[in-house]
Order: sequence, then structure tokens, then C-alpha cells
Amino acid sequence: MDSATLHEEIHSFFESAPPLKESAKITDKLNRFIHFDSPSPGKGRRVVCVTSGGTTVPLEQRCVRYIDNFSSGHRGAASTEYFIKAGYKVILLYRRGTCQPYCSSLPEDPLLECFELADDSDFRVRQSHSEAVKGAIMNHHAAVAGGLLLKLPFTTIFEYLQMLRIIASSMKSLEYHAMFYLAAAVSDFYVPWKSMAEHKIQSASGPLDMRLMQVPKMLSVLRTEWSPSAFCISFKLETDSKILLEKANMALKKYKMHSVVANELLTRKEEVTVVTENGNISVRRDKTRPGSEVEDPLVELLVKKHSTYINDAIAQDL
Amino acid sequence: MDSATLHEEIHSFFESAPPLKESAKITDKLNRFIHFDSPSPGKGRRVVCVTSGGTTVPLEQRCVRYIDNFSSGHRGAASTEYFIKAGYKVILLYRRGTCQPYCSSLPEDPLLECFELADDSDFRVRQSHSEAVKGAIMNHHAAVAGGLLLKLPFTTIFEYLQMLRIIASSMKSLEYHAMFYLAAAVSDFYVPWKSMAEHKIQSASGPLDMRLMQVPKMLSVLRTEWSPSAFCISFKLETDSKILLEKANMALKKYKMHSVVANELLTRKEEVTVVTENGNISVRRDKTRPGSEVEDPLVELLVKKHSTYINDAIAQDL
Repeated sequence: MDSATLHEEIHSFFESAPPLKESAKITDKLNRFIHFDSPSPGKGRRVVCVTSGGTTVPLEQRCVRYIDNFSSGHRGAASTEYFIKAGYKVILLYRRGTCQPYCSSLPEDPLLECFELADDSDFRVRQSHSEAVKGAIMNHHAAVAGGLLLKLPFTTIFEYLQMLRIIASSMKSLEYHAMFYLAAAVSDFYVPWKSMAEHKIQSASGPLDMRLMQVPKMLSVLRTEWSPSAFCISFKLETDSKILLEKANMALKKYKMHSVVANELLTRKEEVTVVTENGNISVRRDKTRPGSEVEDPLVELLVKKHSTYINDAIAQDL
Repeated sequence: MDSATLHEEIHSFFESAPPLKESAKITDKLNRFIHFDSPSPGKGRRVVCVTSGGTTVPLEQRCVRYIDNFSSGHRGAASTEYFIKAGYKVILLYRRGTCQPYCSSLPEDPLLECFELADDSDFRVRQSHSEAVKGAIMNHHAAVAGGLLLKLPFTTIFEYLQMLRIIASSMKSLEYHAMFYLAAAVSDFYVPWKSMAEHKIQSASGPLDMRLMQVPKMLSVLRTEWSPSAFCISFKLETDSKILLEKANMALKKYKMHSVVANELLTRKEEVTVVTENGNISVRRDKTRPGSEVEDPLVELLVKKHSTYINDAIAQDL
């Protein structure tokens, strides 16, 4: 596809999208977070935008049905913790209701499952969940209060891409110190808002035939226009290992990513492959440490690569 | 559609569905809950199966993408509270991650939003959420411990319908004392498991055309075979008020429901219409009481109708 066609497609995607609510408020929050809410503000501070969870595609304007991309949000939540540990400020663009940082060892319904009655008029945290609950609350509060974590929720593909564009513009001035870690499962197909049924699709008349359009590939414009100096990592998830690395390599070249993290659905918590121009690096969870996560060495590797990227950029500027 | 074709469709739906995990364990839980776990067991005790939240339809066998039906689960969760208050035992068949009974006044992420740091090594519930948190934990625990609430989670349409069938069989022996309150948003269309793509659908080659088949209407067999003496309430949600009552009436007749609760997407928390053979009854939230819910008078009305139904059945038996 030539660049003029892509720009046209992107323009028409945003033109036809339902307007993002509170976009001025989001921009304001972002600017405060990036430039002020921090013990050591300034251009030198590294900021990463982590995207997490799946986007939805509404099939009806008054939305009853939608297509969803499966993603627990665990990768993004865990990676957020390691980026903060490594000194980054994290903008977490996450799907409403998915996994939150510092909460991975909690059960699904923490309030109902982690607490018990103490006596007739009070409750307490269950002994078995005591550490997990305390850790989640304390670490999460510390990250937010310390100006290291800004969480922005989305649901639809329209919200996700509009917010990503705003975040990228806000981060543009950080130049090489900005990083994008695009772990969200973004819909490939959508129904353009204007051609969408206004009301609930009726089921009376036989099978339903649907035609979905491809979502324009925004990664190219993120890299070349929205935030051209940022260090960009995208993810490629496949269920078929045979085509995974090939597809990751294609994405690397097509979208000019600095790395593509290739992961397979069934083994994604054990192992990923970081695909770069200079070859592939396999990253595995440290099985000798109980509770260790693959995101720990993955983020460590990417932080090092980001350092090299910044140093190279500074050297070129000199 | 004649009854032979429907039975064939239903047979082929269940035959082709991925087998339900732990179905023996679920049956066992149900039998204990219905017949034993209660201060006053026996056939005379009323039991309602409340279904809640939306079902998903996988588009790929190793599921990355699926179609989802929007439903917060609020209706089912709130109704559960009122049924328990009215003396019913409730089997809540709910979508994982949706609204839970006694939790409606909590924020989305209660653990992170309702608690705060007390000092360096402890945390406490925020004053502003204190009553809501205490109420949720105490009432929920009391209902479960008292043998009045059994919660069974589902995600896909395959799980939902298999579980509903098991629940209906377990409740069959309760005869007229059983009630179904089918508030879940059930998919009308699905991709038969066997014709489904094994791997993730590739996005490289233009628009995606999909053909979805109609989910066979299980309400008929629930009424006539699975639990033929039970009192059955189904729900009809539309976004277009012009067709709502007509569609609710059609459902009442076609599936031989005892009542159909008609609700419109935008006003569903304020008002519903209970459609019966003898006419329609409009039910509204009591606006003079702050925090009142439409589920309160709705459940009250249906409990009365259930009483009449039981008394009529007893009179016929005499």
C-alpha cells in the first residue's frame, strides 16, 4: 500500500470514529504526568507507554454486540511493574476490567475472596491472602502517588487509537527518552461507524453475514509522525508457531519497529522471542526462581536496548 | 420450524460443542445446594436460577477473537439480592468478571480504589467506601454460608447452554417451586465449533467475510423438557422501542414463557414491562427513595406471580 492511501484510510478512520470523551482532560493529565508529577522531572527522564488488554469492535452503534480480542492484560500489568522498578515513568493504556499492576497474585474477585467476617460487625483480610493484598495496595498506591504510574482505560478500538495518538503527541517532546511497548491485542478488523447498524441486529432471518474492514495500520504513522524519535516495541501473537517468526520479521520491517516481541498463545508466559534487525533473542522465564515471570528478563533486555538507542542518538547529535 | 428440526439443531449444537469442564463437580454442587445446604431443605423450598451477563462466541478454536454480548450483569446481581430477601435460594449462572450481588455500589476496581495506606506497613478501607465495602463482604458471605447463594461462572455460549441444561435437570424434581429468571444476554449467532478456524484468522488479505449461524432456541426445550413444571421468565432487550413489545409478545407465545420482561437499552434501569398472557404490567423504580432499583418491584411482582402459579398447581393436583 502506498503512503497516500494509508493516510487516507487513517484519516477516514478517525473522521468516522465517535468522538473521544474528555480528550482535553486526558491531554492535561498526560502533560502534568510527563513534565511535572515527578521527583525528577525534565527531558532526561524516561517514559514508557505500555498498552495492555484487547480492544473491542462494536457491531452496532447502540452497542449490544461487539467483537473482542482476548487478552487478560497480564503481560502489560507485569511489564509495568518492571519498568517502574527500572526507573521509568509508565503511562498504562489498558482495557477496562483487565489485570492491574501489582495485582497478579490476587484472585479474580479480590474483595469477595480475600476478606472474611471477623465478627458480626467487621471483616478482615484472610490470612492466606494477607501478603498479596497488602503488596497490591501498597505498591500500587506508591507508584501512583510517586508520579510513576498514570493509568488510562479504553474499551473500543476507536478509543484505543485516539488515545494512543494523544499519548504519542504528548510524548513527542521527550524524543529518544520515550518508549512505546505495544502489548495490547488490537483488532485487525472493524465495522466503520457510519456503515454500522444503529439498532440491534435482528436474529429472525437466518444466518448473519458480516463484512469487516481492515483497521488501518497505525504503527507506521506512530513511528514516522506521531512520535518519530521514540523507541518502539510491538508484539506479535500467533497460535501457529510455524508462521510466528516470519510474521514478526515482516512487522519489524513494515512498521520500522526497533524490536518485535514474538509470542505464541500457549507458551507466552514461559518464553518470547525478541526479533530485531540484528537477529533474534530468545527470552525465558527463570524457572529456578518460584514466581518468576518472563516479563522480568524481557523488560531488562529492552531497557538495555533503549539505553544503547539513547546513547547512539546522543553520540550522533554531538 | 417444526419440533424435529429444532431437536436436530439442538442435538448438533451440543454434539459439536467443546465438552464442559468439571461437569460432574457442577452437578454435585447443584444437588447439594438444592437438597441439603439449607436450614429448611425439601421440596417446598423455592429455588430460582438467575442467569446474568453476556455470552461470548469464539471465532477461532484457540480463541483469540470472539463476539461478545454487552451486559454488565447488574440486573442479575441486583435481582439475586431481592430473591434471597424474599426467601428464595438462588443459583446464579453469571458471566465471569461481571457485577456480583451486594457489590453494585462499589467502584470498578474495589481493592485499589476502596483502600488506602494507613502507615508504612498497613492499609485500611477509605472512610468514603467503608459502608459499601462492609455491606458487600458481610451480605455476600452470609448468603453463601447460609446456603442461599450458589454462584456458577461461564464465559462462552457453549458453557452457558451446557450449564443451563445441567441446572434445569437438577431443578426438575422441585417441580412448581423452581423458577428460571433468564436475564443473561445470550448470543443469537455462533460459529459451529467444527467449522471454526483452528488458528488465528490472518488479516493480510483484505476485508473479512463471516457467516454466523443462529443459535438454536433452547427456551422451548427448557420449558417442555428440561424442567417442564418450572415457572419461566425470559428477558427481551431492544434498542428500538417501536418493536420491543411486539418481540416480547412473540417470545412469550413461541417459547411458552410465563412472563417476558421487556426492556429498552437506554431506560432499562428505570422501567421494564412485564408481558404476560393476561396483559402487560409496567414496573418502575421508586424515584422517591434514593438508591432504589427497578429490580425491587420487579422481583416482588414475579414472586407473587410464582406464588399464584404454585397455588394453582396445588389446587389442580387436589
